Amino acid sequence: MFVPAQPGDLVSSIQTPALLIDLNAFEENLALVHTYLKKHPNVSCKPHAKSHKCNEIAKLQIESGCTGICVAKLSEAVNLADAGIKSICITNEIVGDKKLDILVGLTAKYPDLEISTCLDNFDNAKDLNRKMKNIANKKIDVLIEVNVGQNRCGLEPGKPVADFLEQILTLENLNFVGILCYQGWNQHIRDSEERKKAVIEVVGGKVKSTLQAIKEANLPAPEIVTGGGTGTFIYEAESGVFNEVQPGSYVFMDNDYNLNGDGGIKFRQSLFLLSSVCSINKSGNFVVLDAGWKSTTMDSGVPVFKDYPEFEFVWGGDEHGMMKEKIASKNGEKSKKLDVEKFSLDDKIWLVPGHCDPTVNLHDWLVGVRDGKVESVWKVDARGPGF
Amino acid sequence: MFVPAQPGDLVSSIQTPALLIDLNAFEENLALVHTYLKKHPNVSCKPHAKSHKCNEIAKLQIESGCTGICVAKLSEAVNLADAGIKSICITNEIVGDKKLDILVGLTAKYPDLEISTCLDNFDNAKDLNRKMKNIANKKIDVLIEVNVGQNRCGLEPGKPVADFLEQILTLENLNFVGILCYQGWNQHIRDSEERKKAVIEVVGGKVKSTLQAIKEANLPAPEIVTGGGTGTFIYEAESGVFNEVQPGSYVFMDNDYNLNGDGGIKFRQSLFLLSSVCSINKSGNFVVLDAGWKSTTMDSGVPVFKDYPEFEFVWGGDEHGMMKEKIASKNGEKSKKLDVEKFSLDDKIWLVPGHCDPTVNLHDWLVGVRDGKVESVWKVDARGPGF
Repeated sequence: MFVPAQPGDLVSSIQTPALLIDLNAFEENLALVHTYLKKHPNVSCKPHAKSHKCNEIAKLQIESGCTGICVAKLSEAVNLADAGIKSICITNEIVGDKKLDILVGLTAKYPDLEISTCLDNFDNAKDLNRKMKNIANKKIDVLIEVNVGQNRCGLEPGKPVADFLEQILTLENLNFVGILCYQGWNQHIRDSEERKKAVIEVVGGKVKSTLQAIKEANLPAPEIVTGGGTGTFIYEAESGVFNEVQPGSYVFMDNDYNLNGDGGIKFRQSLFLLSSVCSINKSGNFVVLDAGWKSTTMDSGVPVFKDYPEFEFVWGGDEHGMMKEKIASKNGEKSKKLDVEKFSLDDKIWLVPGHCDPTVNLHDWLVGVRDGKVESVWKVDARGPGF
Repeated sequence: MFVPAQPGDLVSSIQTPALLIDLNAFEENLALVHTYLKKHPNVSCKPHAKSHKCNEIAKLQIESGCTGICVAKLSEAVNLADAGIKSICITNEIVGDKKLDILVGLTAKYPDLEISTCLDNFDNAKDLNRKMKNIANKKIDVLIEVNVGQNRCGLEPGKPVADFLEQILTLENLNFVGILCYQGWNQHIRDSEERKKAVIEVVGGKVKSTLQAIKEANLPAPEIVTGGGTGTFIYEAESGVFNEVQPGSYVFMDNDYNLNGDGGIKFRQSLFLLSSVCSINKSGNFVVLDAGWKSTTMDSGVPVFKDYPEFEFVWGGDEHGMMKEKIASKNGEKSKKLDVEKFSLDDKIWLVPGHCDPTVNLHDWLVGVRDGKVESVWKVDARGPGF
């Protein structure tokens, strides 16, 4: 595992490709989320570590006022628990004998750890209950995942959730605490008014009907109604229905989020992929960079250039990307001329990744920079598919 | 770094998502490449480690009769040199002060290491020459990369290469050994006859004209003419012009290569992404798996199911994928019915990745399996963007 830089290094001497964090922008984002939530004192912020997988950042989020940390999977939870994080919510279902053993083992190993996980299947709930009883001999907090439109995991809203809740209340080592209602597919509606409208519609429909069904069945109301990503958390917070939000990308941002109309929620781009010019093609008039699919992902479009937004990033395979003139736009606007003579080999080029989460997952290190110098080098502790 | 399995484990107990190697298929592929090249005794096979980034596999390739190992970048070369590989070709340009120091340091650290690198820029050549003289005080083998149509790095074919060669021959610590003429863009032409024709056209045109220009300039002929990937290496080998080929994916294969007409070159799929069923949606009639963008990449299309080719993999984000019925085809053929009742939570589902190289780059471990049991667990030593 090659460390791309050491504290004190100049940015120009960082080994590329490497992921940088602009620490000024990052620290501003850490604080901003709480500024935005100030008007909603009943709504706590439990940010999602799937974006950074980094213990150091999770600790800074807790210091900034977050009440705990969300994770996408067990390996992320194990890392954070080992690092001393005291409140962790796994926002997915943990399935399978070995994984349940690890989860139950965590509750036994750390008696003061508040850890919760999601359920959408009674067989799985029974397995978890049995292991909590036999191995840990205590209760574990559980949330029911509601399929409010993501169409992935979760139970259908309304009565199916109430019926399931009635079942899991019979399991004595599970402690029902809430419902997870995440609107992932709404995070990137570009127009902020449309996005807000879409969120409100889901809250007023699928979320409220679920709460209503639970009430009508005379079952205990969920203490926690959670969900909300970087693109929508403010709307969930304003709804009066949610009392917890889970933004993740807000610490970094990416090009996909930057293409959103912000609706007044203005996080700064803090994550960059630093690349170097490794070849200059004068006859073809393009510059080749040492950054391809193995250093930034393509699931949410191409990266853009921080300092050269007028030019286009073109994928060059696993290890390369090209800076090229944009094709002239449809309205007859001419593309800006790219003067390759202005570039030299080893010039550093800053890219804004298309999607921060899977890009961070490619890297072992996050290099924190300020004023042209490296200040911190943080490990991406839970990097990888893990378990 | 969580190890997904131990030798002796049953496949059903491997922690998912995890990359598996079907060792029978893998070993067959290791041998097959030499069977195919038997008719061409003057052509050596220097396979590309960018596909596996794994020291163990590189050693097995050498044992199988390969003359050395190609790598895409310096971090891969460092790993292999430290693991005792004696012949390494870096098929890209190494640019920048620190990277050149590391390369030159390798030649000093391992006196019996035959290492070569590519050039396409005279400033870079002079930098390398100066460091080889001042630090290592010896010569390093260099190849000129020729842009035979990849339109990425490399010099234009013909006279530009001859002119550049004349320049680098003046640099006393560089030892010109050959030219790299890689046809990456031709690897996935589906029809094997068309693919062969495309390769032959490039060899007869851009490659031969480059050799001709070198000859006409009375410069030393390249000892090595190298290139060729898994989709085309046999055509380069047959050409009589190439004396080295660099297939990489052949050890694993992937869905993109499997969609090629093989033209009689039949490698077996040995690489699989093992996933588990983590949710079952009965009303939506789909199964959710714990495998998404963080465990297999989307640059070359979706993965396919080894045992359920009739169903479709649908991305569910970073950590999820769905098994769904295929949309009925245009010719009126009905899609096969997916009976979700046949699946249980934690069922293991084998996926064939769309593109092996960047998928391997997501994982820390390659789990070798045979007869339903884990036999080996190999580290992906050079995983990551590295340097």
